[in-house]
Amino acid sequence: MDNQPIKYNPVTPAIVEELKTIIGEKFVLFGDPEKLEPYSHDEVAEKEYAHMPEVLVRPNSAEEISAIVKLANRYRIPVTPRGAGSGLSGGAVPLYGGIVLLADRMNRILEIDRENMMITVEPGVITNEINEAVQDLGLFFAGYPMSIETCTIGGNVAENAGGGKAIKYGVTGRYITGLEVVIPTGEIVQLGGKLVKDVTGYNMIGLMIGSEGTLGIFTKIIVKLMPRPKVNVDLLVLFKTPEDSVAVVNKIMTSGVIPTAIEFMDQSAFLTTCEYLNETIPYHQAGAMLLITVDGTDPNQAEKEYEEIGEMCLSGGAIEVYVADNYTTSERIWKVRRNIAEAFKVFSPHQSLEDIVVPTAHIPKMVAGLQELSKKWDCPIPCYGHAGDGNLHATPVMNPKWSLEQWHNTVPHILTDLYKLTKSLGGTISGEHGIGHKRKQYMPLIVQDAYIEMMRAVKRALDPNNILNPGKIFDM
Amino acid sequence: MDNQPIKYNPVTPAIVEELKTIIGEKFVLFGDPEKLEPYSHDEVAEKEYAHMPEVLVRPNSAEEISAIVKLANRYRIPVTPRGAGSGLSGGAVPLYGGIVLLADRMNRILEIDRENMMITVEPGVITNEINEAVQDLGLFFAGYPMSIETCTIGGNVAENAGGGKAIKYGVTGRYITGLEVVIPTGEIVQLGGKLVKDVTGYNMIGLMIGSEGTLGIFTKIIVKLMPRPKVNVDLLVLFKTPEDSVAVVNKIMTSGVIPTAIEFMDQSAFLTTCEYLNETIPYHQAGAMLLITVDGTDPNQAEKEYEEIGEMCLSGGAIEVYVADNYTTSERIWKVRRNIAEAFKVFSPHQSLEDIVVPTAHIPKMVAGLQELSKKWDCPIPCYGHAGDGNLHATPVMNPKWSLEQWHNTVPHILTDLYKLTKSLGGTISGEHGIGHKRKQYMPLIVQDAYIEMMRAVKRALDPNNILNPGKIFDM
Repeated sequence: MDNQPIKYNPVTPAIVEELKTIIGEKFVLFGDPEKLEPYSHDEVAEKEYAHMPEVLVRPNSAEEISAIVKLANRYRIPVTPRGAGSGLSGGAVPLYGGIVLLADRMNRILEIDRENMMITVEPGVITNEINEAVQDLGLFFAGYPMSIETCTIGGNVAENAGGGKAIKYGVTGRYITGLEVVIPTGEIVQLGGKLVKDVTGYNMIGLMIGSEGTLGIFTKIIVKLMPRPKVNVDLLVLFKTPEDSVAVVNKIMTSGVIPTAIEFMDQSAFLTTCEYLNETIPYHQAGAMLLITVDGTDPNQAEKEYEEIGEMCLSGGAIEVYVADNYTTSERIWKVRRNIAEAFKVFSPHQSLEDIVVPTAHIPKMVAGLQELSKKWDCPIPCYGHAGDGNLHATPVMNPKWSLEQWHNTVPHILTDLYKLTKSLGGTISGEHGIGHKRKQYMPLIVQDAYIEMMRAVKRALDPNNILNPGKIFDM
Repeated sequence: MDNQPIKYNPVTPAIVEELKTIIGEKFVLFGDPEKLEPYSHDEVAEKEYAHMPEVLVRPNSAEEISAIVKLANRYRIPVTPRGAGSGLSGGAVPLYGGIVLLADRMNRILEIDRENMMITVEPGVITNEINEAVQDLGLFFAGYPMSIETCTIGGNVAENAGGGKAIKYGVTGRYITGLEVVIPTGEIVQLGGKLVKDVTGYNMIGLMIGSEGTLGIFTKIIVKLMPRPKVNVDLLVLFKTPEDSVAVVNKIMTSGVIPTAIEFMDQSAFLTTCEYLNETIPYHQAGAMLLITVDGTDPNQAEKEYEEIGEMCLSGGAIEVYVADNYTTSERIWKVRRNIAEAFKVFSPHQSLEDIVVPTAHIPKMVAGLQELSKKWDCPIPCYGHAGDGNLHATPVMNPKWSLEQWHNTVPHILTDLYKLTKSLGGTISGEHGIGHKRKQYMPLIVQDAYIEMMRAVKRALDPNNILNPGKIFDM
């Protein structure tokens, strides 16, 4: 049974009428390829990963989503939930057509609970809006994906997004204490609550987080907030070479200081992005840089910490350490960091943005290995990422001398080498972007068949008709 | 099918011989009720929750466990994994007899990886041994269950144990980055690794954590360590009444300071425990106390924080604030806190140690509600717990005037009231002890049928013969 191709039914005009009855005519988009095209892809650069939806629906409530999912089960039509479409592994792409379910109308902040330091939001809320809503209360959401200004919290939860504050604060999942979910059979289920500890049965919230829209559609999300740090200092540290820079990372990580971020950018990453942004930071002499953040409640403590870190960098061969202790300068640097992926996409539309993660101490071996791979395949592999987490966005980019065909033939070999290297260092193929359909063919390089079989069993158990976002992570 | 009673086969002498072939004769205990009795219960006080195993096995490797689980599937015999038996919800009790699988021989520390700040251990390692093994490296494990000196890390993971440092550091699950697991079909599966971020498919580690031995038997556990705080200060804060003390908790929690612990003890809790320990802390005038810990890297910062907290307590009506800034005094106070459950058990063998958790801001309502319940049922309900997490160990204790029969008839009503109150405050029935079979009948008061049905579906998918620790959390 498992090896049969999935057979779904087409979305007929009669089904479209039913959808219109459920959510209202103007929130159903059908039969207009031009308007539907934006929902055929996410931010993955290569068009081969795109697939057109048959119909787009924009529901406004859990009840509407429940009705849509029940309809999809009745007619055997796949449903793919979608937030901002800023994903990087194809999670929001309707691989088998069917219904794309857009969260844009479910974008309300439902409650800010200052006393419990929790916020309840709908999935379509832009992640940064959470921070804007709570900053005057001295609180913040500790998730910080690089797409924070455009991505939605629903997508963050579905992918268990990481980002720029994970060393100190962890990733999205740590802050999700409650979910309302429409499960694949269409039922609306409440999980968890405003609770910082909860062992009432299996951790279904944890299972939903990072399940890439294959096990449930979130309709309410309870997010734990943290006291907003009073002090935030960024260090921009220049090194001659990538090797020099990453050699310092583990010294910092094992020093006892807990920084908020240690971001790595090689020369190609920051020069390309400065050009893209018309940013004139004059750091052309550097071969790599680290962007290191410390935050806290006490300025003296923060100063002590960043001075200690600065010393470690200088004794590790840093050319220069710039201190950015005000919002404007910090934001200028972080804007460069946040825009690397976008800049590469503009300058190198044929590329494969990767998301490997290795044990932190093995970052230097990984960076050295990337340079060897780049030579071996005669293909640029610029690199940047969350070095303090061991998470590197190595990005093979088409050699300009190659034909498109040559690129498409070569890239699977480069990725296979890259993933094998990652695996040999105890790493894995995704730290924060997810598997989607972009990486699923490579899963057997990294995980045991038994693990894939466990995932299939869970998927079958919760989604017997394989309705929700089929074809992602693994094939049935 | 679901409502049929579970039918398992008995453990025959022939099966015992097979078990002996797998792990060696001297590691199989059969036919000796006196020696098997200690494995019929955990630390739940009431004997009604006990159930005798048919056979005890003490395997020494994942391969042996795999063979035992495969045998159990062949013969349809339940397998219940057991660590130290220090659980508080019946998790390690073999409710349907069969095989108890003891982890005591799998108690090796396999690797300490200083560079990646990870330790790899077998499940039978005593939790505190992890700290002893890494303290000279300036590291520690941030889990701190009150049974840390006797419990095992395998049990901590199975129950997702909380404890005394969860406000700042979170619970056990946050530190588990990799698992080797024998799944219910007997296969040995590697999950995760020494990775602080990992979204390679469904979060099966998260699903295993807190699944109470029903979805897998851990054979290796990779634990993330943290830099050991250089400073640790405890405040022991005395209040006239429980109401006064808990009113302060949320002031601290929302002040911006992040303490490591805020533990609450009512008068009955600390007096009983001081008597049990022959401890002479002369705090008889207090009606309740808070034990508050701050830790960090910098003594000045810690001092600033505990002074701020001390001020909040005094302005909230504290009678006195004692500062314990050395190990001996801290340990003396924490020893009292750690021994409350044991002391109550000795002085009041007929009791129900509860583990409710509510949103932190609702602790005062919960404490007031407990006092009303105590009056309504004419039953003492002493209370203590991790107030900063909203997690209270309210403990209905048999009224000495009652007959045992009266107690057993009354306690379900008290618990029903207690859980309904908890639910009405947005809380749940277990923060860290788990459901086991002690609380499973009350699950419908707290969670939706659809959630229980999801758990059943996952259990059926991963354990088709219902071999692993059946009868816990939910009935099939």
